[in-house]
Amino acid sequence: MAVIAAACPQPVAAAERFTTERAQLTVEPVAEGLVHPWGLTFLPDGDMLVTERAGRLRIVSPDGRISEPVAGLPEIWSRGQGGLLDVVLGPDYPETGRIYFSFSEPGDGGASTAVARAVLDRGDLRLSDVEVIFRQQPKSGGGRHFGSRLVFANDGTLFITIGDRGQRTRAQTFTINRGQVIRINPDGTIPEDNPFVGVDGRLPEVWSYGHRNPQGAALHPQTGKLWIHEHAAQGGDEVNVPEAGKNYGWPVIHYGEDYGGGQFGEGTHKEGMEQPIYYWDPSIAPSGMAFYTSDRVPAWQGDLFVGALKYRMLVRLDIEEGEIVHEERMLGDLRQRIRAVDQGPDGNLYLLTDARDGQILKVSPTPLY
Amino acid sequence: MAVIAAACPQPVAAAERFTTERAQLTVEPVAEGLVHPWGLTFLPDGDMLVTERAGRLRIVSPDGRISEPVAGLPEIWSRGQGGLLDVVLGPDYPETGRIYFSFSEPGDGGASTAVARAVLDRGDLRLSDVEVIFRQQPKSGGGRHFGSRLVFANDGTLFITIGDRGQRTRAQTFTINRGQVIRINPDGTIPEDNPFVGVDGRLPEVWSYGHRNPQGAALHPQTGKLWIHEHAAQGGDEVNVPEAGKNYGWPVIHYGEDYGGGQFGEGTHKEGMEQPIYYWDPSIAPSGMAFYTSDRVPAWQGDLFVGALKYRMLVRLDIEEGEIVHEERMLGDLRQRIRAVDQGPDGNLYLLTDARDGQILKVSPTPLY
Repeated sequence: MAVIAAACPQPVAAAERFTTERAQLTVEPVAEGLVHPWGLTFLPDGDMLVTERAGRLRIVSPDGRISEPVAGLPEIWSRGQGGLLDVVLGPDYPETGRIYFSFSEPGDGGASTAVARAVLDRGDLRLSDVEVIFRQQPKSGGGRHFGSRLVFANDGTLFITIGDRGQRTRAQTFTINRGQVIRINPDGTIPEDNPFVGVDGRLPEVWSYGHRNPQGAALHPQTGKLWIHEHAAQGGDEVNVPEAGKNYGWPVIHYGEDYGGGQFGEGTHKEGMEQPIYYWDPSIAPSGMAFYTSDRVPAWQGDLFVGALKYRMLVRLDIEEGEIVHEERMLGDLRQRIRAVDQGPDGNLYLLTDARDGQILKVSPTPLY
Repeated sequence: MAVIAAACPQPVAAAERFTTERAQLTVEPVAEGLVHPWGLTFLPDGDMLVTERAGRLRIVSPDGRISEPVAGLPEIWSRGQGGLLDVVLGPDYPETGRIYFSFSEPGDGGASTAVARAVLDRGDLRLSDVEVIFRQQPKSGGGRHFGSRLVFANDGTLFITIGDRGQRTRAQTFTINRGQVIRINPDGTIPEDNPFVGVDGRLPEVWSYGHRNPQGAALHPQTGKLWIHEHAAQGGDEVNVPEAGKNYGWPVIHYGEDYGGGQFGEGTHKEGMEQPIYYWDPSIAPSGMAFYTSDRVPAWQGDLFVGALKYRMLVRLDIEEGEIVHEERMLGDLRQRIRAVDQGPDGNLYLLTDARDGQILKVSPTPLY
């Protein structure tokens, strides 16, 4: 039974049960006291690697023991929306121990999103061989719109989603990195089949552009295509399936309005700019996404789960043949800002709550069908 | 400004204004005192032809003058959900004055949906040359799930949506008419290219089957394809784009549960049965649909408007490249059960409210963009 939502949301204190369209859910805290946890990934033995935006990387056991911070991170600019952001395992992690993480990197002019790889020594809780393999150019001031999610494609390349750094007017500038999906090789080199390789005046690392601030990304389990969502201005958060070389329109076309109510841009459609496959108006502030693949809830297989910050809920998007046919909103009574969503090896969903006293929540489903 | 919803919804008394995502709306009553109005279509001079479920057909002028009932209707079984239902103009109306209407026809065993055509004499308020061109077989007792909407396709054939008459288990029976889209010629003969023509054990008038109770239908303005929506059991109202010969699954697959909470059927998916392109859970009880085509609100062009009975609102489905990418819910504060939605020649939307004291509401949009 859900408790009555407090005016000021508190951490989840004990297991709570929810009935949703396709499953009975038990939500229980696995770990707490994480400061604005941002990224979560599972290690092969079931432990979790978790980032705190403040600039700490920790290992959390399934029963909630939280390690000391892992040593050896590069310098991180932890202000506003910036800090240590996403973390994923390299495809060769079992052999090499290599992990990849995104963060706000300080430097001339302010900060920008960077991605590094490093070898994780779990015994010593230490990173070694840290290499920065991508830097958003140029750095700039302000603490907004860093992105960023990391997803390895099936061909071994790495997708990085980066925000517009609050520089709306520059998201259609071809010579800098503002509001893009980046695609690089694991060593930071540029894949030869990137869409703008060899194109004058274009950046070869760019996969797609015209994004605003994408903070969710996942690979579709059947098609292998990248899916992302992005925060809009007021109204018009989008789900996109970014294709090579395409322009997703920000800030020229969009479904929002300016915060404060003004209009900008040229409407919702324009030749040469792509439409989203789904949008939320009003904005829910999506963060984190995961496709559900476990046979534990057959009715969820292939569905996309999305966290919401502002709307404090978990969203299930029912996908049929690559299109979204239904949206279910759940866990609103928890009143938690959801930052990240992942599926555990046990078929449960794991959520990070965006709070000073942030938690890992385990969502255990029992199918209704 | 919307008034506070009364516990028992009242007719709309005066013009009210609403701000929606893409347009400012003024909603005003055009006509009232219609008893459960069901179907609405525009005559070439801007008058409206309106059915009352109780079995009356009337002509309503744009300024709200309601004619006496048109004489000459066949006998109509007006109980429960049955009665005089949809009405459309024949493609040859300007030359012949011929209209088409659907109704619950009494007969051996109870009643079933039938479609007739007749010549409308506006001066005498009389129908002549009434011919029944389709009869749902067999007739049966009970007052549920007659459908029915009428849509002329661009090739001159007539689509008729019919419900399962509450006989859930028979919607997959091939030798009777339960839960189908029917396609006939205007004279009631069967088009030779219907999918089951010449197929043993199948009915040649059937276009698609496995539907429950479709009460909205419209032709997509670009593709010319038929779109429908249908009432589900508890949860899972669907939008479908019925294709020739295909099975839309009811009651074997669906997204609902039984009223009262039980489960039935075989889940949501099955080989050989089609998925909806959109569904509502919980059910909104959709009735009526219209594609918006006027250039009065460019941001609405190509969007699908759907009325809702239970949820007492108007829905806008934003359609991009044939897929629904966003749902907007509006006019909920009016607290009206919406039975039908049509676009007027003036680019306004016209709604019928399902009530003993039913109204025609004019929705005048002013674009926000």
